[in-house]
Amino acid sequence: MRKLVNDPDRLVDDMIDGYVAAYGDLVSRGDHPRVVVRRRSKPRGRVGIAIGNGSGHEPIALGWIGAGMLDANAVGEVFAAPPPDLVLEAIRASDRGAGVLLLVSRHAGDVINAEMAVELARAEGLRVEPLLMYDDVSSAPKGREEDRRGAPGTTFVYKVVGARAEEGASLDELVALGSRVRDATRTLAAALAPGVSPLTGRPMFSLPEGEVFLGMGVHGEPGLRSVTSATADELVREMMPEILDDLPFERGDEVLVLVNGMGGTTLMELLVVHRSVAAVLEERGVVPYRPLVGSFVTTQEMAGFSISLCRLDDEIRRAWDAPVRAPFFHRPEEANP
Amino acid sequence: MRKLVNDPDRLVDDMIDGYVAAYGDLVSRGDHPRVVVRRRSKPRGRVGIAIGNGSGHEPIALGWIGAGMLDANAVGEVFAAPPPDLVLEAIRASDRGAGVLLLVSRHAGDVINAEMAVELARAEGLRVEPLLMYDDVSSAPKGREEDRRGAPGTTFVYKVVGARAEEGASLDELVALGSRVRDATRTLAAALAPGVSPLTGRPMFSLPEGEVFLGMGVHGEPGLRSVTSATADELVREMMPEILDDLPFERGDEVLVLVNGMGGTTLMELLVVHRSVAAVLEERGVVPYRPLVGSFVTTQEMAGFSISLCRLDDEIRRAWDAPVRAPFFHRPEEANP
Repeated sequence: MRKLVNDPDRLVDDMIDGYVAAYGDLVSRGDHPRVVVRRRSKPRGRVGIAIGNGSGHEPIALGWIGAGMLDANAVGEVFAAPPPDLVLEAIRASDRGAGVLLLVSRHAGDVINAEMAVELARAEGLRVEPLLMYDDVSSAPKGREEDRRGAPGTTFVYKVVGARAEEGASLDELVALGSRVRDATRTLAAALAPGVSPLTGRPMFSLPEGEVFLGMGVHGEPGLRSVTSATADELVREMMPEILDDLPFERGDEVLVLVNGMGGTTLMELLVVHRSVAAVLEERGVVPYRPLVGSFVTTQEMAGFSISLCRLDDEIRRAWDAPVRAPFFHRPEEANP
Repeated sequence: MRKLVNDPDRLVDDMIDGYVAAYGDLVSRGDHPRVVVRRRSKPRGRVGIAIGNGSGHEPIALGWIGAGMLDANAVGEVFAAPPPDLVLEAIRASDRGAGVLLLVSRHAGDVINAEMAVELARAEGLRVEPLLMYDDVSSAPKGREEDRRGAPGTTFVYKVVGARAEEGASLDELVALGSRVRDATRTLAAALAPGVSPLTGRPMFSLPEGEVFLGMGVHGEPGLRSVTSATADELVREMMPEILDDLPFERGDEVLVLVNGMGGTTLMELLVVHRSVAAVLEERGVVPYRPLVGSFVTTQEMAGFSISLCRLDDEIRRAWDAPVRAPFFHRPEEANP
């Protein structure tokens, strides 16, 4: 399989070129060519939301820049955390005088570079707070939640803190809210086939035919175990207790639901998976609220999906429903309910 | 590669189950279980917009049901046109007393079944007009446009007639407008690797390693020729004259642009492709207006993309900008421009 690239060394720059050319009414390059920002900045006096991440997982994170979500993204090389000075540029670019919340999906390189960027920003007199995000139940046992990896359930944090920052919440309030969303979120992934590296043109890992890896991370990190489930429904029924019993989610809880494709799994299949997720939730008496299905956090054309749940409260629900104007985040409400 | 299905015979029903379970605030099943409709109908006295299509191409068409776009979709089996009686159900479901526009992407089975459905509907006293859509420049030579296949450029028709129907345009006006959009639209596709049939689990066609088929249709139909272009930019530069010179699009024209992924091509690559499209348009003096990039009309995980252009006029531009509330169509405007 061939990849549609020009020079691999220019891949990230070419991608950003193509993005700001297509969506220039919404996003633009910042002062640094590897930082993408909102075309029209958030009003002064509001808290900025910044993130740095390796590229190759699109549409996250550059696709989620816009009113109601992110202010600036430091775009790293493919699958590589952006360096501290680049993350610092994203912090600067999102500062509107009321401090910056730096979202950090918990992977070793991202955490180290973010911590250094925060130090550099504070040395410049900027007010910035990092928020570590971790939701993958397969990456560390219960009781050691803070050792877990960031996974697609971080979507809930982006959306919720993005909405409340737009409305004027303070930095302290956003740190508390983002921590609450994170602590109420659990994710488990299933990988069926590897993606292809856009740098080498080769599969990113190998996986025996017919096996499914439960718990694989967004870069192919190992997880819980492999299974040979035959159907979508059997696979979901294998996964859901790992998620539900970890928080635990209990009868009567209302939850946000994300069924996320890893890139190479069709929407048809993701909808079939969602059917099984909804069935298990109903059996458990857990009540879904405006679920989201699609390929938002990808690893090139890796085949597979993840299931994420977040226990709701009123503030989280309102923030989930709030409008967002990002090129690649979309969960509309009925216009005239 | 494995597919996430349960029983292949239940695949389409399972998909619809999963869809209406996730997006039940926006869509629901109609009176027939294979027809998906808006949860809240369009007001009476507005023209309904209906379509029947084979499934396996999601998010089109069931993902585009919602205010400002489609009213009802007859969901066929995988890659198979829905039978006339099912298309009739979609026509009935979208009738609000002012007639129905039935959109038909030009493929043999879809056209025959749509014509029969129109006859059946008229025999019941319903007012319905079919609109044949064809935009693939590779499928018949210039001068025989009406023999061409429907391709992803039909997206422009869906969006534009959907917006104007919502605003109250008459059926005659919508037929004229839809025809104008179709006649101003041209598409060319490039296929890099086949998708896998969800029914058989096998690749849907074969393609020599390193070759790219120009002009492949959405079911793998043959097109212009195969090429061995080395980079995204070279491939786009091979394709653009076929599109631009066919209408032709001329210096000073404003155009809608769609770079559509076939399913297995990453957003990163599609953005790189868009960069090249934008460069060629600039060289030609053709002016893009709020382009759209993403995987909207897919063929399972087929790798490849298409480029579609539509020459704008003021009515088309306003309709492109109009709000839409469908689960899987999204092209936001800046909230406060």
